Amino acid sequence: MASLLVDKKKKHNFSAGPAILPASVLKEAAQAVENFNGIGLSILEMSHRSADYVAVVEEAVQLTKELLGLDDNYEVLFLTGGASSQFFMAAMNFLNEDETACYVDTGAWSTKAIKEAKLFGNVNVLASSKDSNFSNVPKNYTVPADAKYLHLTSNNTIFGTQQHWWPETDVPFVCDMSSDIFSRPIDVKRFGMIYAGAQKNLGPAGTTLVIIRKDMLGKVARTIPTMLDYNTHIKKGSMFNTPPAYPIYVCMLTMRWLKAQGGVAAMAKHNEKKAALIYNEIDANPLFNGAAAKEDRSLMNVTFTMPNDDLVAPFLDLCTEAGCVGVKGHRSVGGFRASIYNAMPMESVQMLVGLMQDFAKKNG
Amino acid sequence: MASLLVDKKKKHNFSAGPAILPASVLKEAAQAVENFNGIGLSILEMSHRSADYVAVVEEAVQLTKELLGLDDNYEVLFLTGGASSQFFMAAMNFLNEDETACYVDTGAWSTKAIKEAKLFGNVNVLASSKDSNFSNVPKNYTVPADAKYLHLTSNNTIFGTQQHWWPETDVPFVCDMSSDIFSRPIDVKRFGMIYAGAQKNLGPAGTTLVIIRKDMLGKVARTIPTMLDYNTHIKKGSMFNTPPAYPIYVCMLTMRWLKAQGGVAAMAKHNEKKAALIYNEIDANPLFNGAAAKEDRSLMNVTFTMPNDDLVAPFLDLCTEAGCVGVKGHRSVGGFRASIYNAMPMESVQMLVGLMQDFAKKNG
Repeated sequence: MASLLVDKKKKHNFSAGPAILPASVLKEAAQAVENFNGIGLSILEMSHRSADYVAVVEEAVQLTKELLGLDDNYEVLFLTGGASSQFFMAAMNFLNEDETACYVDTGAWSTKAIKEAKLFGNVNVLASSKDSNFSNVPKNYTVPADAKYLHLTSNNTIFGTQQHWWPETDVPFVCDMSSDIFSRPIDVKRFGMIYAGAQKNLGPAGTTLVIIRKDMLGKVARTIPTMLDYNTHIKKGSMFNTPPAYPIYVCMLTMRWLKAQGGVAAMAKHNEKKAALIYNEIDANPLFNGAAAKEDRSLMNVTFTMPNDDLVAPFLDLCTEAGCVGVKGHRSVGGFRASIYNAMPMESVQMLVGLMQDFAKKNG
Repeated sequence: MASLLVDKKKKHNFSAGPAILPASVLKEAAQAVENFNGIGLSILEMSHRSADYVAVVEEAVQLTKELLGLDDNYEVLFLTGGASSQFFMAAMNFLNEDETACYVDTGAWSTKAIKEAKLFGNVNVLASSKDSNFSNVPKNYTVPADAKYLHLTSNNTIFGTQQHWWPETDVPFVCDMSSDIFSRPIDVKRFGMIYAGAQKNLGPAGTTLVIIRKDMLGKVARTIPTMLDYNTHIKKGSMFNTPPAYPIYVCMLTMRWLKAQGGVAAMAKHNEKKAALIYNEIDANPLFNGAAAKEDRSLMNVTFTMPNDDLVAPFLDLCTEAGCVGVKGHRSVGGFRASIYNAMPMESVQMLVGLMQDFAKKNG
């Protein structure tokens, strides 16, 4: 642990998002701001119609397809407006006023998705874990066969829960994967749409990955403003208007890194090891309690509390002193949250676990 | 000229957008990707709720107010979705279905703004220069006193025209200033809303500056999705959801640079000198013709053609060889376009003018 403490310059970044990115990606991303690929222009000042930049977007799309195993039934877009814009755009593009979409309420983000969808059609909330402060993921509900889609949130950043069980149904999933995309293999064919704000597992803030199965499109009667119609962006390869060029570029670099690590299968193994290390410590350490139901624990956002409130501030001070940032829990849960996305190295998790052990020795 | 040709590494960037940014801004922007202000985190991986990042957004808002002389009647937002999203959002937020907004059609962008506004209310197109391929800016029309707003495009990037004359009316302007914001002083009090995609005079692609006079708000009856309601973003200081953190940061750096140059008044003088240099050459050089009406010429985007089509490709080759990029004209106008935004140094304009002179000597 001592050796890690020596390097005060680089923090251990447990932020929930915007979040840690691979060091090699940051280095290349910085270089491109001064001079992209040695062409004598910054990536920030290149035309988005230039061959050099078009190649960036095309590689980002190709890597997304490759990493997730998407076939040609899927369109890949890099849009803006965050996952928050997809809350209404999904319903606007997929749901007619007299049709019904099903939602499962697993926390703050799904609650917002439900609110926005109601502006466009009927919303049937099949299940909610609100009564337990979203500390678990509802299971074993039945999805009506005539539902237009079933909206799920695969990982709940705030509450530290994750979808490890998926309902049996032929209704296509529309899924907010903002905080666990590319962290594990998924059974793609069950998803009609996947969306993810970039700033957790994919890149910096400023772009949103949107993946749409073609059969979801062209079925609503309403008139949609041009910029809100998925078809607009599909027809122009995410280049109908000037795209968020740099955020997409950094996503592309991150996906290159991800592929070099062995892709999502290799990443899942690494993520399981990191999560096991910290959850084991939470379960063994008398000072800490896990906040989420064990079977629904997130491999991305580890939420934990302290029975003794007086020790919360001192432990956060210890974390800060050791260069561990972003460990304070969201106000909805309290305590602590360690976000350990793909780019988080095992060494940083070991560092945090070491702090938990040291703290228990002194305060146990 | 020879000395400029020696440095092959750095291009003379005449791109229409994304466009040239000040070299000092790019240097600081690259450094922040590795380590922001020496805090041990990249700006790409910092929480948008951290004090360090909140200070960035606050400074960006403050600099916008200071540079444009905005009083407390104006709200300043940094949103996403480009100016293209403001085409519909302005009408959605300001115009009831039974009300009328007036538009002036000065080219491709205003045409799109008109199309989107029609989804929300009555649109009265007061004037259009379409018949002259948008080579001039319509003038001397009358604005009906009961219009909700008058939409103008202050600078037309594609056609190289600019609003130098403003109509006399009490109707508030809603103005797309994407390609000339911060390039000259404006009479702010006449504007109910100003919007600008960042990627011309303000920063990199990925954020849109939206300035709204408070009395424009709260007057429409329709239900608006949360993310499309200006009030959502005003209440949360552009932080309702995760903002495009890095694009906003680079805008802030660019505004700092702009202030250090003497602000928009000093910038206007510099821009006038640069534009005069190249327009004088166009008027004097027998090989080139200006594309826009003289009184409406843009100080930002200089469009020009060649009577002899056979010489177009050779001149573009000469530009490329000399490191002048982005000089090819938009397909709607043909010929050439030199975008000479705030950050374009006089030396690059001199370089291009030198090429025009050399080319005329060899081909005159």
